[in-house]
Amino acid sequence: MRIVQKYGGTSVGSLERIRKTADIICGELERGHQVAVVVSAMSGETNRLLSLAAEVSDNPARRELDALVATGEQVSAALLAMELQKRGVAAYSFTGAQAGVKTDSSYARARITGVQSDHLIERMQRFEVPVVTGFQGTDEAGNITTLGRGGSDTSAVALAIAVEADVCDIYTDVDGIYTTDPRIESKASKMDHISYEEMLEFASLGAKVLQTRSVELAMRYDMPIHLRSSFDLVQGTMVSKEDDTMERAAISGVAYNRDEAKITIMEIPDHPGIASNVFGPVAAAGINVDVIVQNVSEEGHTDITFTVPRSDYAPTMKIMADLCKGLGASGYKGDNTVAKVSVIGVGMRSHAGVAQKMFQALAAEGVNIQMITTSEIKITVVIEEKYVELAVRALHAAFELDRAAGEG
Amino acid sequence: MRIVQKYGGTSVGSLERIRKTADIICGELERGHQVAVVVSAMSGETNRLLSLAAEVSDNPARRELDALVATGEQVSAALLAMELQKRGVAAYSFTGAQAGVKTDSSYARARITGVQSDHLIERMQRFEVPVVTGFQGTDEAGNITTLGRGGSDTSAVALAIAVEADVCDIYTDVDGIYTTDPRIESKASKMDHISYEEMLEFASLGAKVLQTRSVELAMRYDMPIHLRSSFDLVQGTMVSKEDDTMERAAISGVAYNRDEAKITIMEIPDHPGIASNVFGPVAAAGINVDVIVQNVSEEGHTDITFTVPRSDYAPTMKIMADLCKGLGASGYKGDNTVAKVSVIGVGMRSHAGVAQKMFQALAAEGVNIQMITTSEIKITVVIEEKYVELAVRALHAAFELDRAAGEG
Repeated sequence: MRIVQKYGGTSVGSLERIRKTADIICGELERGHQVAVVVSAMSGETNRLLSLAAEVSDNPARRELDALVATGEQVSAALLAMELQKRGVAAYSFTGAQAGVKTDSSYARARITGVQSDHLIERMQRFEVPVVTGFQGTDEAGNITTLGRGGSDTSAVALAIAVEADVCDIYTDVDGIYTTDPRIESKASKMDHISYEEMLEFASLGAKVLQTRSVELAMRYDMPIHLRSSFDLVQGTMVSKEDDTMERAAISGVAYNRDEAKITIMEIPDHPGIASNVFGPVAAAGINVDVIVQNVSEEGHTDITFTVPRSDYAPTMKIMADLCKGLGASGYKGDNTVAKVSVIGVGMRSHAGVAQKMFQALAAEGVNIQMITTSEIKITVVIEEKYVELAVRALHAAFELDRAAGEG
Repeated sequence: MRIVQKYGGTSVGSLERIRKTADIICGELERGHQVAVVVSAMSGETNRLLSLAAEVSDNPARRELDALVATGEQVSAALLAMELQKRGVAAYSFTGAQAGVKTDSSYARARITGVQSDHLIERMQRFEVPVVTGFQGTDEAGNITTLGRGGSDTSAVALAIAVEADVCDIYTDVDGIYTTDPRIESKASKMDHISYEEMLEFASLGAKVLQTRSVELAMRYDMPIHLRSSFDLVQGTMVSKEDDTMERAAISGVAYNRDEAKITIMEIPDHPGIASNVFGPVAAAGINVDVIVQNVSEEGHTDITFTVPRSDYAPTMKIMADLCKGLGASGYKGDNTVAKVSVIGVGMRSHAGVAQKMFQALAAEGVNIQMITTSEIKITVVIEEKYVELAVRALHAAFELDRAAGEG
């Protein structure tokens, strides 16, 4: 098999961890696999570099910021390659530029446009191990670019696609994706498989194990991702195309996110363009709006409710204060003690009544639903934060996910 | 004027120093000059990276070591570019690879083979400031290489040659080259000019302000080097081609080096190949032999005396112990309390009696000469270390260098 492995900052964060990481790589080589590795910066290193820049300038040149922080991965790639060489493995570090990772010119959030990987494939076929810096590449003019925080997952998937790997192993601190948070529901079980679409929903709901962009990329090229623990080399969760076994259950898991604040603008005169008038200034302030619900118009007026991350609650409320009069709205109100709970599953497509079952389960526990949004494979409700644990457990049981734990 | 400036680790070692460095650069731009900058790693950074590598491996892969330590300059180049951008200067950092610095493949001691600098010239003509990482380049295959400690001076001179600069300004902690060490002789004076050849001799004698390789390179392409202080922006010492004014004095200065240990092998049977039998094993141990003196052969036997750095004294003595019997020598002895004192000057070529004057001056102070070697522009004696200050002052006076201080 040809494998691209990705290790995060903690896996190269100390010399002890670098050794353990090298152990894993050597294990795969011994099993006859071809391996390339993508590494992040050592834990804390990117922040150290950013704080140097912050001391120099409040608004450092973005080109230079990227050149600066890109050194973090170069350090860990070289150290890991040294450790592997020490064990007799022909390992070589490569910067993004050397590995042929091409991006656009959007500093700090560049997108990968291609990977010129022929030389990497040749090395892998000789059982050499390229150790590639994640998170970075170069644009057409040769400027160093970075992909933004967490971009190393995306680097790994892009490299896996380019070298036509069989799988992209992403090593983390957790051993996979669970049917829900085991800290809330002890009956939660690890999923052996999950579809790209489901993974995207879990990722967007704060399952921080995989960057959303990397899952999108993997989905587009059908590159299986194996999410697994570097502490415990058991089977983790395979993220891949939906298959027959996935269709059995209506719901794969229950996710939640406490980082939500809710804002409602009341009785806005309803006419075309109203939504852009509301969300234009919010977007301009760099605030990511999450759920948006607009009720049907009554007597020419409508209410719009939306959620933002809690850290953006105060600035968003300030924008609303400035905005409300101009919109002709009767007022606005906010609540930063709400949370989001979702049920996710590709099986939802072929199972009727999922929404109804969800609402019943919550009602039975006395949980009031404040907002509802649905996508093809997800139903999300916004509720009072204090009900999160209760709601998660109720839904985990209602969709018979508890049972999976017994089977696993 | 087109200027390439080089700043060492202390000039980018703190944010305060980075600001002062930016002040100097902005000053030159305001005077209408075109400027490119070469920087070292922040003080201590290279050692920090090397110690990381040392923790990973006793014998780290050299390719990876170079990739690792090359990050040090990238960090300081990016930070300095940020500081300049903050002031409205169009400054851009470039790694060795980006700047087009090509080297051979000798990791850790690569030699520059060329600089593809057209894009840098274009930028300088637009009064942009390229900030280039010193000490590094890439080989033909694109591997990152470093030039060895102090290589940033060489990078700066190579870049100055490539962009056809008028001068290469090397900023250091000292304000120039003195006729001798002012800590020993208070009448020592700063030289306004010095020839490349003299600078080479001073550099090889432990005047650590300029790397020997950089002077050799400057001499070959006749690139003037202005050695100056980043603390005090007065005229420093200009290192350039010998000119008429330089011919006035027989001797430019007096240099010394305490880091010497002397070893003598006695009564070796004299036949061809004896020197290589002695120095082969020493060189194989990575020990740099400095002065070598072989007396004329008497009755088929000869004595060989040589000096090594003091840190290599013990290992060299050990090699001699192993070697002596095989050579048929009568024995060997060592002394690690010797020092080297030299008089240097291109004027020596046209002045007779320099050696005689030197020996007389030393004899008058009762300083015994243990070894003598001469080159075209230098006479070196090895003496007991305790006489160093006395000898330096006596020679400084004998060659009328004291007078220069009065003139300056």
